[in-house]
Amino acid sequence: MTRTVISSASKEVIIGFDQPFAVIGERINPTGRKKLAAEMKEGNMETVKADALAQVAAGAHILDVNAGIPLADEPQILADTIELVQSLTDVPLCIDSSIVEALEKGLSVYKGKALLNSVTGEEDRLEVVLPMVKKYGCAVVGISNDETGISEDPNVRYEVAKKIVERAADYGIPKEDIVIDPLVMPIGALGSAGRGALELIRRLREELQVNTTCGASNISFGLPNRRGINAAFLSMASAYGMTSAIMNPLHEEDMNAILGADVINGVDKDCTKWIQKFREPAPEGSGARGGRSGGRRRRPAA
Amino acid sequence: MTRTVISSASKEVIIGFDQPFAVIGERINPTGRKKLAAEMKEGNMETVKADALAQVAAGAHILDVNAGIPLADEPQILADTIELVQSLTDVPLCIDSSIVEALEKGLSVYKGKALLNSVTGEEDRLEVVLPMVKKYGCAVVGISNDETGISEDPNVRYEVAKKIVERAADYGIPKEDIVIDPLVMPIGALGSAGRGALELIRRLREELQVNTTCGASNISFGLPNRRGINAAFLSMASAYGMTSAIMNPLHEEDMNAILGADVINGVDKDCTKWIQKFREPAPEGSGARGGRSGGRRRRPAA
Repeated sequence: MTRTVISSASKEVIIGFDQPFAVIGERINPTGRKKLAAEMKEGNMETVKADALAQVAAGAHILDVNAGIPLADEPQILADTIELVQSLTDVPLCIDSSIVEALEKGLSVYKGKALLNSVTGEEDRLEVVLPMVKKYGCAVVGISNDETGISEDPNVRYEVAKKIVERAADYGIPKEDIVIDPLVMPIGALGSAGRGALELIRRLREELQVNTTCGASNISFGLPNRRGINAAFLSMASAYGMTSAIMNPLHEEDMNAILGADVINGVDKDCTKWIQKFREPAPEGSGARGGRSGGRRRRPAA
Repeated sequence: MTRTVISSASKEVIIGFDQPFAVIGERINPTGRKKLAAEMKEGNMETVKADALAQVAAGAHILDVNAGIPLADEPQILADTIELVQSLTDVPLCIDSSIVEALEKGLSVYKGKALLNSVTGEEDRLEVVLPMVKKYGCAVVGISNDETGISEDPNVRYEVAKKIVERAADYGIPKEDIVIDPLVMPIGALGSAGRGALELIRRLREELQVNTTCGASNISFGLPNRRGINAAFLSMASAYGMTSAIMNPLHEEDMNAILGADVINGVDKDCTKWIQKFREPAPEGSGARGGRSGGRRRRPAA
């Protein structure tokens, strides 16, 4: 029963086989968001603040923080952003950068046990990032690609994941602190991407016994109604044992797919969270209290 | 690669591991629909007609037809309804009754190879229904309960399913012509109902190698936002190998969960159906044709 514990100064989140699906909010990321990139470069953190609060309000358990802005001092901006977000909310953070110096600077200011995003199966990354994971005692996302790139063959991606877990063990990092991203491919380009991902997720859980995450929306790249595909994939991946995803918690379809999967998987005990979110308001004039504060309108009977 | 072939006079539908999920429209059923029951008893078939056409338009592959009305001549009404529906649409039908005489009368007027709904593991049902299945060469839904009732233990339900398949074989009915209903329980009452159903569906597919169906909405009985739970369950069950469901094709969430699962499972080849249903309309004035006829509004980017 693998459990990955992540924390802020005051709050612990467990990613685990016996836990509700962990939602890692993806919004604080300037990649492809020109306005946000410009703001963060200038030290204007208003959008970051709003994104942090909105994602937590929408149910994110962890927030990914990325400051990948061209021609900017990414390590410093990432560290500043982390400090700001930690001052606003108590959810743990996922420190996200492709630059090793930024990861280290982020870890140095982070309060708690972070999820570091990421290491790959590339030798030079393993050799630099894993000692950092050990030094700071954090957890890390292991992405299943290596020097040869991303294989379309899920078995090759499994072997890369296995190598990351084994190399981490050499550094004294337990498999509980590795969250594998099996790399979900766009189904519009590769028809076997869905079944391949599901079977790989099952192997990662049953054989390698690690927690998993992914950038869920990759699956729907290039297709219309992407959220519909993402929602189906998230429920299905959760059925196969995926325990977290880096996703947009403001997308209601995706969140409902996750919360519904938690109910079906029996990890939303007594359906408590589902009922809290969706219960009908008390009838007008009934004198009954509660129910309405959730702000949900009355829904038609199914 | 189990394939259950169902047909009308002019159209064949295959329920199968390598096929898109088969949607069996549940609406033509007076159970719990007082107005429809009264109409059908009087021979007023307007609602039946409307329900038949609407379900086919919404994407039903098969229509369930039930005439279970208290104190009425169910065999005759069922036969009349079947004849009417077959005159309106070419989708194959699922002949649904708990009364053996109604099943037989329905089969006697049906054009094509019907899906008979249902036989159970009860001895007296097996002995009467299976010879009828053999005589008419139809397929049959096998419900996994027996004289002892419905077991909460999925392993017991598996054994009942196995017994039905074995007894059918004694009558010369191949497993391809049995579609097992594993009996999905309400998750609000039994927290293990979801995982239990998923694992049972997987065993039915991998070990017993039969197609499966279920009344999908049972899973959400008693919970708010039932369609959200149904949608997650349908995607997840499809991931585990369920190949059909008796469901309401007018519920868009449920249908999208199925169509999305078909994409992920790789059985919507080249995502053709998904793209057809959800493609963006051509921009105004572009001169491009098509896309708009689907009647879908432009959706925000995911």
